[in-house]
Amino acid sequence: MTDHTSEPRDIADTTRRRTGGRAARQAARAHAAIQSQPFLTRKLAPYEVLSEEGLALLEQNADTILEEVGLEFRGDPDALTLLAAAGADVQGERVRFPRGMCRRIVQASAPAEFTQHARNPARSVRIGGNHTVFAPNYGSPFVRDLDRGRRYGTIEDFRNFVRLAWASPNLHHSGGTVCEPVDLPVNKRHLDMVDAHIRYSDKPFMGSVTHPERARDTVEMAKILFGDAFIQENAVVISLINANSPLVWDSTMLGAARAYAENNQATIITPFILAGAMAPVTAAAVCAQTLAESLGGMTFVQLVRPGAPVVLGSFASSMSMQSGAPTFGTPEPALVLYAMAALARRLGVPFRSGGSLCASKVADAQAAYESANTLQPTILAGVNFVLHAAGWLEGGLTVGYEKFIMDADQCGMMGVLADGIDLSENGQALDAIRANGPGQHFLGSAHTLANFETAFYRSEVADNNSFEQWQEDDSLDAPQRANRIWKKMLAEYEQPPLDPGVDEALRDFIARRKAAFPDSDV
Amino acid sequence: MTDHTSEPRDIADTTRRRTGGRAARQAARAHAAIQSQPFLTRKLAPYEVLSEEGLALLEQNADTILEEVGLEFRGDPDALTLLAAAGADVQGERVRFPRGMCRRIVQASAPAEFTQHARNPARSVRIGGNHTVFAPNYGSPFVRDLDRGRRYGTIEDFRNFVRLAWASPNLHHSGGTVCEPVDLPVNKRHLDMVDAHIRYSDKPFMGSVTHPERARDTVEMAKILFGDAFIQENAVVISLINANSPLVWDSTMLGAARAYAENNQATIITPFILAGAMAPVTAAAVCAQTLAESLGGMTFVQLVRPGAPVVLGSFASSMSMQSGAPTFGTPEPALVLYAMAALARRLGVPFRSGGSLCASKVADAQAAYESANTLQPTILAGVNFVLHAAGWLEGGLTVGYEKFIMDADQCGMMGVLADGIDLSENGQALDAIRANGPGQHFLGSAHTLANFETAFYRSEVADNNSFEQWQEDDSLDAPQRANRIWKKMLAEYEQPPLDPGVDEALRDFIARRKAAFPDSDV
Repeated sequence: MTDHTSEPRDIADTTRRRTGGRAARQAARAHAAIQSQPFLTRKLAPYEVLSEEGLALLEQNADTILEEVGLEFRGDPDALTLLAAAGADVQGERVRFPRGMCRRIVQASAPAEFTQHARNPARSVRIGGNHTVFAPNYGSPFVRDLDRGRRYGTIEDFRNFVRLAWASPNLHHSGGTVCEPVDLPVNKRHLDMVDAHIRYSDKPFMGSVTHPERARDTVEMAKILFGDAFIQENAVVISLINANSPLVWDSTMLGAARAYAENNQATIITPFILAGAMAPVTAAAVCAQTLAESLGGMTFVQLVRPGAPVVLGSFASSMSMQSGAPTFGTPEPALVLYAMAALARRLGVPFRSGGSLCASKVADAQAAYESANTLQPTILAGVNFVLHAAGWLEGGLTVGYEKFIMDADQCGMMGVLADGIDLSENGQALDAIRANGPGQHFLGSAHTLANFETAFYRSEVADNNSFEQWQEDDSLDAPQRANRIWKKMLAEYEQPPLDPGVDEALRDFIARRKAAFPDSDV
Repeated sequence: MTDHTSEPRDIADTTRRRTGGRAARQAARAHAAIQSQPFLTRKLAPYEVLSEEGLALLEQNADTILEEVGLEFRGDPDALTLLAAAGADVQGERVRFPRGMCRRIVQASAPAEFTQHARNPARSVRIGGNHTVFAPNYGSPFVRDLDRGRRYGTIEDFRNFVRLAWASPNLHHSGGTVCEPVDLPVNKRHLDMVDAHIRYSDKPFMGSVTHPERARDTVEMAKILFGDAFIQENAVVISLINANSPLVWDSTMLGAARAYAENNQATIITPFILAGAMAPVTAAAVCAQTLAESLGGMTFVQLVRPGAPVVLGSFASSMSMQSGAPTFGTPEPALVLYAMAALARRLGVPFRSGGSLCASKVADAQAAYESANTLQPTILAGVNFVLHAAGWLEGGLTVGYEKFIMDADQCGMMGVLADGIDLSENGQALDAIRANGPGQHFLGSAHTLANFETAFYRSEVADNNSFEQWQEDDSLDAPQRANRIWKKMLAEYEQPPLDPGVDEALRDFIARRKAAFPDSDV
């Protein structure tokens, strides 16, 4: 164990004594287990920002882009052959699609929703429909916490975030590159990352996409865990395939997508668009281009293996016109998110977008406004798969330990919001109002007592005490409270048991792969 | 001038030199003038969390409460006479309403929307329909800033917040008790508060409600400003009338409401409900009770003067089940807000709710998550009058200078969100996509250059620079940046000119009233 994890464990030992030892921990876990759902099922209808007519216009524009401008599929002659055979007009690497072709192919075979299996079946998630799955931050080279500030991520940080995601009742998924383990060679770190997801969590996870070979390694490790036959029939890995916007799919992403699709594993086909750079500055243009690019990518996947699960992804940010830097939590990407969610519903595929995005360097008010301004549309638009739901800072360059805790708490609130208003007799509570009458408070009423435990979401992070009590409790701000929480969670973390045969086979596979070629940082 | 205001003015003088003197200030004002709108007109449709059937059920329950339980109208025999004459069943102070009576009376005469006039006609606001008006914090005894921490509010703080609201392009209204000027006697401070709104702002403002006599003073001052004849035909003051929930209207509030209604001035009839204390814990019960209480209050106002503008208000918070303290930014009050907005639309009156509410003691991430979680539903539900849009901290006990600046910036973002997606040809930007083609960025494209200035909301508070640049700029967090902004705004503030005759008449009125009775702290 490194210094890093031993430190929080010691601190948390103190907390443990304060809060009453093993019995209290067990009670807390039992409580979390009751609240914890493997995924959300929203009762609220999605919010629509465009009319049917407006959405149809964006679909027409996507078709116009696909027909007149086309997409480039670079460095992958097999992809060009496949697309030409399906009816596309291929000239060099430029592929133009007759109007409606992509939509027809995607709708013919892509599932509207699917299950991604976890090694613990109770934690399998349903992706699509009115379900929402929260997954942690993805792809940050830096990590930050209040004790050590900002630094490059390591495999120990990676494992910590896997542990924290596992222990968070409001996160449903272990995610993928929760941070970049920069201390490991680029060409082998995927083995340790996938290993960490399998070993330190029993929630579903994501696979490597940085090279087709690494995608195949992920599939091999999934076979060890689930069995070859099982994965050919079931999605057990989901992976993030980004377009090289505008209008380009490159060989790395096409190769990774193929590796997963050939094995019936799920992919999230995501144009990543900084409006003004990778697309025009306007929301309607970002939407049409996103739809065109994702349709092209999903068509490729369906041609590789009809029926392989695909998710339409949209990642759009606005831009600081002063510096050219991406901005988050602003209104323009929220509008894109709402429109893209509606377009995915009309297409009939699951949708990925949103999260707890922000540009702030630290877990301050800017970070929280921006994250909430992203997470609210995420839940109200009805996003099905939410990457970056917890931890994201600094435009994704950094994942923060305290930010992770605060965001996960917000995800819990979104779950309650998505449940909508209870109109049962207990919810209406007319008898309670009748019984009390004017001027009588409800603190001791039978209805209040009966609903006391579950009436309101209980935040672990928020301080709702009086000013005087808060001062007595050291006047901590939210990140300082979150700092105590993640240390306690890591201290109390207990690894979910892994079948010894699987354990040995995984170790063996990783050792063989690592020995098969030299380390490289490319 | 007190030490307090001289301090920020000195600091801001430095800023002024840095940014290029008078010409730069004038340019900045011209820019603000272009962006500043007197109020928002939302293009987005309101978000609905309940079906027609669900809303009808809540209306039935409100009618059941009004019919079976009734409301108490305390200490106001004239109100009882008025209600009995209109058909209510009055027994003692308990008033029961036949089903549908309140709705019928309110719908017969209360305007669906109305204009509140400002002394500067360009700043008059439209309240109701698809319009939204942002007004600052209301009612806090404490103020907080980074330099001096938390302390009791003074009249100089009050004037500062009036100045800041005036100078904020994204706040449309001067508000009312922006903080309590605790340094002035309770029975006279309303004169200085109304005077500050008239003198230091030309945006519309709110009146005193702490005693019927103080409401009448407000009306007299409004007459001096607008003329007697004008105010009898037009709303120039809007005032906050809170129920004493559950199910009680008290004599102070009834007296203040009567004083305004008799003079055709607007009132916001607001049940203030901490769920679990003033109503049952469940959202459906809070909604039905809120509707019943506000219907009773609005009925009273319409009987006093048919056609006097009334706004249906809802202020609901959830409760910490550990401490009994109110909590904000949680999902339950958001659901109440959405449902109440729909109920107000069905009734056909303007709606007040929401704001930038939080329980946090400081302007940290908790404050921002909670505020954004309130402001998002505020705009998406289509709230017409938003009190507490900027500055609120600590459950309303404190108004923060830095929080005020950060919240006002968020209000600006909500304005852009409410505009929805531009589907014009320029918005679609198909030609820009055609011209660029795959792999070519849009930074220098003609469409980007043409839309550069207005493409994205520009936050004054957010830092979107690189980590390195941010470090070079002293690694400030959002409140530290906001601290610089409010000081600069106060330093650059220039009082809008007031007619000398009005000025003299106001001073004379205030002097006479202050001399008419001894100071008192009740």
